[in-house]
Amino acid sequence: MELPVGSDYVHFEARVKRLMTENRPVRPEPGRHNLDPHLDRYAARTAGMTASEIRALFAVASRPEVVSLAGGMPNLAALPLDTLSAQVGELIAEDGLVALQYGSAHGVPALREQICEIMALEGIKAHPDDVVVTVGSQMGLDMVTRLFCDPGDVIIAEGPSYVGALGSFAAYQADVVHVAMDDHGLVPEGLRAALAETRKAGRLVKFLYTIPNFHNPGGVTLAVERRAEIVEICRENDILIVEDNPYGLLGFSGQTYPALRSIDPDNVVYLGSFSKTFASGLRVGWVLAPHAVREKLVLAAESATLCPPTLNQLIVSRYLSTHDWMGQIKTFRENYRERRDAILSALEQHMPAGCSWTKPDGGFYVWMTVPEGVDTKAMLPRAVTARVAYASGTGFYADGFGSRQLRLSYCYPTPERIREGVRRLAAVLESEMDLARTFGNASPRSISGPQNPSPDTV
Amino acid sequence: MELPVGSDYVHFEARVKRLMTENRPVRPEPGRHNLDPHLDRYAARTAGMTASEIRALFAVASRPEVVSLAGGMPNLAALPLDTLSAQVGELIAEDGLVALQYGSAHGVPALREQICEIMALEGIKAHPDDVVVTVGSQMGLDMVTRLFCDPGDVIIAEGPSYVGALGSFAAYQADVVHVAMDDHGLVPEGLRAALAETRKAGRLVKFLYTIPNFHNPGGVTLAVERRAEIVEICRENDILIVEDNPYGLLGFSGQTYPALRSIDPDNVVYLGSFSKTFASGLRVGWVLAPHAVREKLVLAAESATLCPPTLNQLIVSRYLSTHDWMGQIKTFRENYRERRDAILSALEQHMPAGCSWTKPDGGFYVWMTVPEGVDTKAMLPRAVTARVAYASGTGFYADGFGSRQLRLSYCYPTPERIREGVRRLAAVLESEMDLARTFGNASPRSISGPQNPSPDTV
Repeated sequence: MELPVGSDYVHFEARVKRLMTENRPVRPEPGRHNLDPHLDRYAARTAGMTASEIRALFAVASRPEVVSLAGGMPNLAALPLDTLSAQVGELIAEDGLVALQYGSAHGVPALREQICEIMALEGIKAHPDDVVVTVGSQMGLDMVTRLFCDPGDVIIAEGPSYVGALGSFAAYQADVVHVAMDDHGLVPEGLRAALAETRKAGRLVKFLYTIPNFHNPGGVTLAVERRAEIVEICRENDILIVEDNPYGLLGFSGQTYPALRSIDPDNVVYLGSFSKTFASGLRVGWVLAPHAVREKLVLAAESATLCPPTLNQLIVSRYLSTHDWMGQIKTFRENYRERRDAILSALEQHMPAGCSWTKPDGGFYVWMTVPEGVDTKAMLPRAVTARVAYASGTGFYADGFGSRQLRLSYCYPTPERIREGVRRLAAVLESEMDLARTFGNASPRSISGPQNPSPDTV
Repeated sequence: MELPVGSDYVHFEARVKRLMTENRPVRPEPGRHNLDPHLDRYAARTAGMTASEIRALFAVASRPEVVSLAGGMPNLAALPLDTLSAQVGELIAEDGLVALQYGSAHGVPALREQICEIMALEGIKAHPDDVVVTVGSQMGLDMVTRLFCDPGDVIIAEGPSYVGALGSFAAYQADVVHVAMDDHGLVPEGLRAALAETRKAGRLVKFLYTIPNFHNPGGVTLAVERRAEIVEICRENDILIVEDNPYGLLGFSGQTYPALRSIDPDNVVYLGSFSKTFASGLRVGWVLAPHAVREKLVLAAESATLCPPTLNQLIVSRYLSTHDWMGQIKTFRENYRERRDAILSALEQHMPAGCSWTKPDGGFYVWMTVPEGVDTKAMLPRAVTARVAYASGTGFYADGFGSRQLRLSYCYPTPERIREGVRRLAAVLESEMDLARTFGNASPRSISGPQNPSPDTV
């Protein structure tokens, strides 16, 4: 294992250790002194808000010498900043009194029309009235959960699932039941079984939350031939589908798949986003809802933020109408494909026997399983010390699973850095496996449960 | 009463009537056929989300021939659009990869420092770490309610109160108990009595929500000599204060008042906003929280939107550091003072005897009480038909009060238009009073309860 030398390294290692020990649960252990005078005032849901244990680590992981395979930040380097600069300047000069003023919670009408054109690429026929613009699709998730979930309601989701969704579900005190995926995505038999068991346990299921395309963090895609079946199972069981599709246009060979929404418009709430196909810092996403749901969604959005930022919506709208945005997405895709190739070949070359991983054909992520005896959360500080970061698996499950899993994001670093990161990770893994063989699994057990999303782990 | 002539008027009147009858509660009456197949799936809180009955009316009220004294849209005409256009263009060209990328849920550090300088104008000493940037202060309200309120918890608020706050409180199923204001703001004895009674009824009070300066919709300001007393009462009763201060720098003679937060930093959550001092369409607000609360606030914000838009934060930050923003606020203030003068003199000149109203020395609003027998919600369609709009009073109360009250916003129209609007309103009021004298009060009773905020009624 290659190690950095000198005092900076010592300082760095100490910082990692200190940060790991500084993490505390929000509710103190009984008898433990707590400094928060407001502790007795919080709502019940606030107890479920726990800071990701790896959050502080990410602050360290953002140092330039660390290769971060942890974050899901899109790589924006290919954006035409000069063109955008001119366009946004013009927008403010020409239309500033609109762009800088309150708008409706529903969203800018012209943008909602353009969003319908984008969704048509995946077979969706929608009316702009049924689109609600949100502050990123994270807000869409939050609003949909707000509309449908009482405390104790059950949401079915793939296992693993998007960490930000698990955070929203926890904020509304909904419980998550995971259904396994295989290389072809969510397993229909698993969904049937989970629904039956949950019902048998007397629990109320509100919806299936699913990311059909280029799954975060799973890296797999729901097979086309499973889609109608999934839709049918949800119909039969009278539950709604919440389809989250931020990566659908990022298939590496330009392939797209029919959205679940295109199969059953009345029973699917669809979430879309410009974060991965244009610019995440604008925070523009959307929800396409069945007509009857949409009205309530607008009301919920109003009480959450009054309206999404008008300027940002007009920037996206102008970009879509004046720029070759499909060409830009093609550039992004090629960029990400190059990185996917780099990570898959490096994994093949360096990873010890006993590791396995998914082979994504779109999106940002590889999901990896390590040999028995290695705990990915316990290993993380050692990996960061060896200057490579990843997202450990338990954060992507609501039920404590995932201690032998981890997510590798290949979206942001250069192919060179990705290869170096994988080399470092393989070395760390090998020492962990050595340790496990020699002493058995002496790692502390991971703390389970959903963690909060953060931009580092989207 | 001056009436428009011709077919357009007929069409217009019919539209008003149709819109009024189209308004329906979200939950159907028992036995009534409902077209929403998802009705049984919603969360309990969704039943409390009711569309403002006056929402549809506002669509009509936005026609150019109607003088709208209803909306709280800031008047942005004085903004230096050319300068802003150049600045934002530069920002994207120079720093686009940061501006268009995810940021932290906490907010951009440089902006949080600048926010501390702004709050210092009202006596607040704060550390930038304790500031959390939000998508407008509406999101701050929503997050604070999320952190603290379980269903059935009680929030004490001025009566009337901000419609958007009532919307957020209802979304979390919290109950509101109103405390009266007089010309010097919230009445301390009223607060004491409300706390005692609520406690006696066995209810748990979570916080006092208050808008001390240039109250929306009340138009009054909490007297300086009452401030320490209010803070003390909340301390004694062990409840938090949520201080909402979007208008504090808009005192017409440049006067500012010491924030409640400056008196008791550990027990006040402070909400600020750039919507009224710079640009509402950017949706940049903030929460200054006691240190222990702040960490949870960041977690809540992450699960709500991941992070506020980076671009918008950098725009505000650059504007604050390169522009004479205090001079700009002075321009806004003068603009609003001229309009306040126009409305007060027109009210004095035209309103029939028996009407009374507040005399704001800052902010956007006049709060008016009409004679017995006139119902302001029932009168609204007639007012809109006479081409003047206002916000009727019941929306600003959670308890059904307010049917003899209305809010007049003088922030947006020209002084000329304001005078014309008041003339029209006075004429409508006189016919209503005539009717009431002749036939008694034949108006239908208003439906009470909080209504959803909308950008039309902020």
